[in-house]
Amino acid sequence: MNTDNKQPLILIGNDDGYNSQGIRTLTRVAREFGDVVVAAPLNHQSGKSCAISMDLPLRVKKISQEPGLTVYAVSGTPTDALKLVLDQLLDGRRPDIVLSGINHGFNTGISTIYSGTMGVAFEALVHGLPAVAFSYGSFSREVDFTPCLDIVRDIVKRVLADGLPADVCLNVNFPPSEGPIRGVKVTSTDMGKWVGEFEKRTDPFGHDYYWMTGTYRPADVNDHTTDVYWTERGYASVTPVTTNQTAFTRIADVARLLNLE
Amino acid sequence: MNTDNKQPLILIGNDDGYNSQGIRTLTRVAREFGDVVVAAPLNHQSGKSCAISMDLPLRVKKISQEPGLTVYAVSGTPTDALKLVLDQLLDGRRPDIVLSGINHGFNTGISTIYSGTMGVAFEALVHGLPAVAFSYGSFSREVDFTPCLDIVRDIVKRVLADGLPADVCLNVNFPPSEGPIRGVKVTSTDMGKWVGEFEKRTDPFGHDYYWMTGTYRPADVNDHTTDVYWTERGYASVTPVTTNQTAFTRIADVARLLNLE
Repeated sequence: MNTDNKQPLILIGNDDGYNSQGIRTLTRVAREFGDVVVAAPLNHQSGKSCAISMDLPLRVKKISQEPGLTVYAVSGTPTDALKLVLDQLLDGRRPDIVLSGINHGFNTGISTIYSGTMGVAFEALVHGLPAVAFSYGSFSREVDFTPCLDIVRDIVKRVLADGLPADVCLNVNFPPSEGPIRGVKVTSTDMGKWVGEFEKRTDPFGHDYYWMTGTYRPADVNDHTTDVYWTERGYASVTPVTTNQTAFTRIADVARLLNLE
Repeated sequence: MNTDNKQPLILIGNDDGYNSQGIRTLTRVAREFGDVVVAAPLNHQSGKSCAISMDLPLRVKKISQEPGLTVYAVSGTPTDALKLVLDQLLDGRRPDIVLSGINHGFNTGISTIYSGTMGVAFEALVHGLPAVAFSYGSFSREVDFTPCLDIVRDIVKRVLADGLPADVCLNVNFPPSEGPIRGVKVTSTDMGKWVGEFEKRTDPFGHDYYWMTGTYRPADVNDHTTDVYWTERGYASVTPVTTNQTAFTRIADVARLLNLE
């Protein structure tokens, strides 16, 4: 809890833009728990990972303000938006929790590293704030998130009450579902990859161009510890993830390889 | 080694653009070891992390071709460039190694997660290729990389000969130096953060805008295991890093938190 306000302060970002269905749904749920500040990209910023804008100045637009809810749109990436609101727009208040999403599309498996939704949660973790990213397995702009919302509420309530281990944030993925979600599993990130990643086309002037596309190939379809495995089976997946990418168990191997023992 | 060619195939990317001093230097060194394909952004793409272009088609320009060296410029991010060359431009040849850099500026500490230079190495790792990213601690466009080059050669030679553990790539950082580098240390990534991240200005029309700036604050200045500690003391730092951000040691904690035991 912050000291100058009895209500928890909940900061929300995303990568689909400040006006997406997913962030509006998450904002409604978050308001049940406290004051909400939304700081999200002005435009759609999917696949932006933890990208930051070093070459361009950023602009902020205050979209709306009412008791308990302020909405900002930021001209840059999801990470830019979170950095900017924390540094410039909270008048010294510290959020009790940072939420990201609800993303339109899965952020399971290797997509974790490309995800702007995760970029928000990772940036919150850099700043020592408890953070949860939510993603839903449909790219549809008009989707009914209702089957997810009890689980969203439960996670927000527990993290607000008990915090998270200091070195992790949570990557939560919901399977597309018309009825109740089958359950919740704590998972690891599948280490698969996208294959057939580009479609080559020719423009009206005879020049080639390429669209990113592709199919996800899991590392091991029988590994029942992963986010991909469980979301494919109708379960919500919660993966604790870290910004520390050091491969600690490989330090000795690499020292040996470089003859530095 | 690939089968249809006796020379190793060395693929090079970066985030400063295909014509930067750093990538031209790395290309010269790499040609001592085999055939080189460069696939780098057409424009400066610092801070792009693992970002991918999902909303824009990509264009490729063949900048030059001579025996043993082909240079492509790609209109998107560093990760786009690597994905595109692997999927579309190598005629089925598989690189023996992927190199990234030499970046103009450090990619130590938490900058690891924002770095487009690292985005290239992480993407190579996703594709199961041995990868090394090189960065030099000066933003100057005209820099003499000579003091680094013996270490670059040594690392490339050893990784070509012995490979890397399958789950890591290397993040190599050189301190700015006019004389010989003091030595090489295998390190972990410092988990600090940038503070004072924005400078607010007013444009000629009276509207506010923000430039990203800031000072890096290490997690623990006395931690002598980190990349930041050793590069500040004149050593080259080699950090084994992974794309698997799962916090495996926190899975039980998070299951407990969510009452899922």
